[in-house]
Amino acid sequence: MSLVFRTPISIRFAHCDPAGIVFYPRYFELINGVVEDWCAQGLGMSFHEMHMVQGIGLPTVHIETDFVKTSVMGDELIAELRVIKLGRASATVEIRMLGQEQDLRLTARLVLVMAQVQERKAIALPSALREQMQIYLVS
Amino acid sequence: MSLVFRTPISIRFAHCDPAGIVFYPRYFELINGVVEDWCAQGLGMSFHEMHMVQGIGLPTVHIETDFVKTSVMGDELIAELRVIKLGRASATVEIRMLGQEQDLRLTARLVLVMAQVQERKAIALPSALREQMQIYLVS
Amino acid sequence: MSLVFRTPISIRFAHCDPAGIVFYPRYFELINGVVEDWCAQGLGMSFHEMHMVQGIGLPTVHIETDFVKTSVMGDELIAELRVIKLGRASATVEIRMLGQEQDLRLTARLVLVMAQVQERKAIALPSALREQMQIYLVS
Amino acid sequence: MSLVFRTPISIRFAHCDPAGIVFYPRYFELINGVVEDWCAQGLGMSFHEMHMVQGIGLPTVHIETDFVKTSVMGDELIAELRVIKLGRASATVEIRMLGQEQDLRLTARLVLVMAQVQERKAIALPSALREQMQIYLVS
Repeated sequence: MSLVFRTPISIRFAHCDPAGIVFYPRYFELINGVVEDWCAQGLGMSFHEMHMVQGIGLPTVHIETDFVKTSVMGDELIAELRVIKLGRASATVEIRMLGQEQDLRLTARLVLVMAQVQERKAIALPSALREQMQIYLVS
Repeated sequence: MSLVFRTPISIRFAHCDPAGIVFYPRYFELINGVVEDWCAQGLGMSFHEMHMVQGIGLPTVHIETDFVKTSVMGDELIAELRVIKLGRASATVEIRMLGQEQDLRLTARLVLVMAQVQERKAIALPSALREQMQIYLVS
Repeated sequence: MSLVFRTPISIRFAHCDPAGIVFYPRYFELINGVVEDWCAQGLGMSFHEMHMVQGIGLPTVHIETDFVKTSVMGDELIAELRVIKLGRASATVEIRMLGQEQDLRLTARLVLVMAQVQERKAIALPSALREQMQIYLVS
Repeated sequence: MSLVFRTPISIRFAHCDPAGIVFYPRYFELINGVVEDWCAQGLGMSFHEMHMVQGIGLPTVHIETDFVKTSVMGDELIAELRVIKLGRASATVEIRMLGQEQDLRLTARLVLVMAQVQERKAIALPSALREQMQIYLVS
């Protein structure tokens, strides 16, 4: 059975636009934060460790997002992350954000590629990381 | 024959991350800026006019993006926008960003919905705006 | 005796620039978040309540900041807020951010003005809010 | 006689908050952009050249700002930059943003320090850069 990674998100004033709702580019900062939390808390390798110590990173090469329902300042959301597919050098993850009533706000599907930061080329997922990711792989 | 809307984009320090390349959520601010420029310069109705005077807006309900090649601080890009599909209340547009060598950096496909801002509900595209959008519709 | 409002801040990938340290405009988003948390948790009136229900806000009219020491991705900071001065319509607050070793990262002094959002004019601080602010006033 | 560096700024949807005015942390991104433009166009050394080629940077160690008048989406501003003081390793600059009627929106005073990026220590301003800065020094 696979795990789901969950992390809370507070919608702040800084995220909202003149229409009073989340400005969609801010959602992508929040989505990136979910991946960051997942790496640190779910996979045991922080972005700091990756970038500053190992010289590797997990750039997003593809993302598709449906904005299902608007969110407003003060909303407390829950983000969920699942792994959909694991490749040699890449992972496809799905992120959902839900309101307090379990109402869906957005779904995003991202393709993350393990890369050597300096040379900017894809490399195989380190096996320890890959094993951890497998725990979140939807069966 | 259909028109292509083009606008220049400068990659700034503020757009770049610790890997020295554009942090992908910043691309979405730039993409939103392309739509904003297109409305003001290509369609003759600024976001200010829409939001502040008419009480309408063009929220993005779906977006999918391929990040083909990285961009770094100092890059001068060209963004191109084409309309792919025109519905009663929505427009599907494709945005490409290219480097100086015409090398593709990203493609994004967005579904924009014409909405009444206060009541947050979809409305038909105003006919003047729709006619202008048609000029950019890929045949 | 006066209270100090404290709230934790995680330095994320999204906050950092090509030099690997916090890009200073991001500090101001974090500073705004400290004021937001203080209003909701320390004063009992959230930004949502202010803006969406009461039609009031606390715009910043002056800010001065010393960036004492850089912060990097992964740093866990503590922010402290104290009220320095309380006027009829304004509050001067000091915010400090500290690292895990109590090492000072920045100090900021902000003048916040209570304002009617629609008409964009200053109004007296509501007395309940003013009383709460007094608890954080440095004597 | 000293020069004033001027550059245009468009206030975009992305800069504005739920009150419909510029969210003040966004002003600091714009201020950083003014310094960036000044370096590239006024001083002849782009941020890209500094950071990526020379391994130097101009971090802001102090900034104080008065927000005099609000700006809204669609405003076309002019930014002016003057050098107030030149030290061995630092420059104090003043930036003003003005509306179309020459009405003042904000003034900011920044202390910029020339630094070696890797070692994060201050170094003397390169003499060519210092000479160029002198042209903008208010006498």
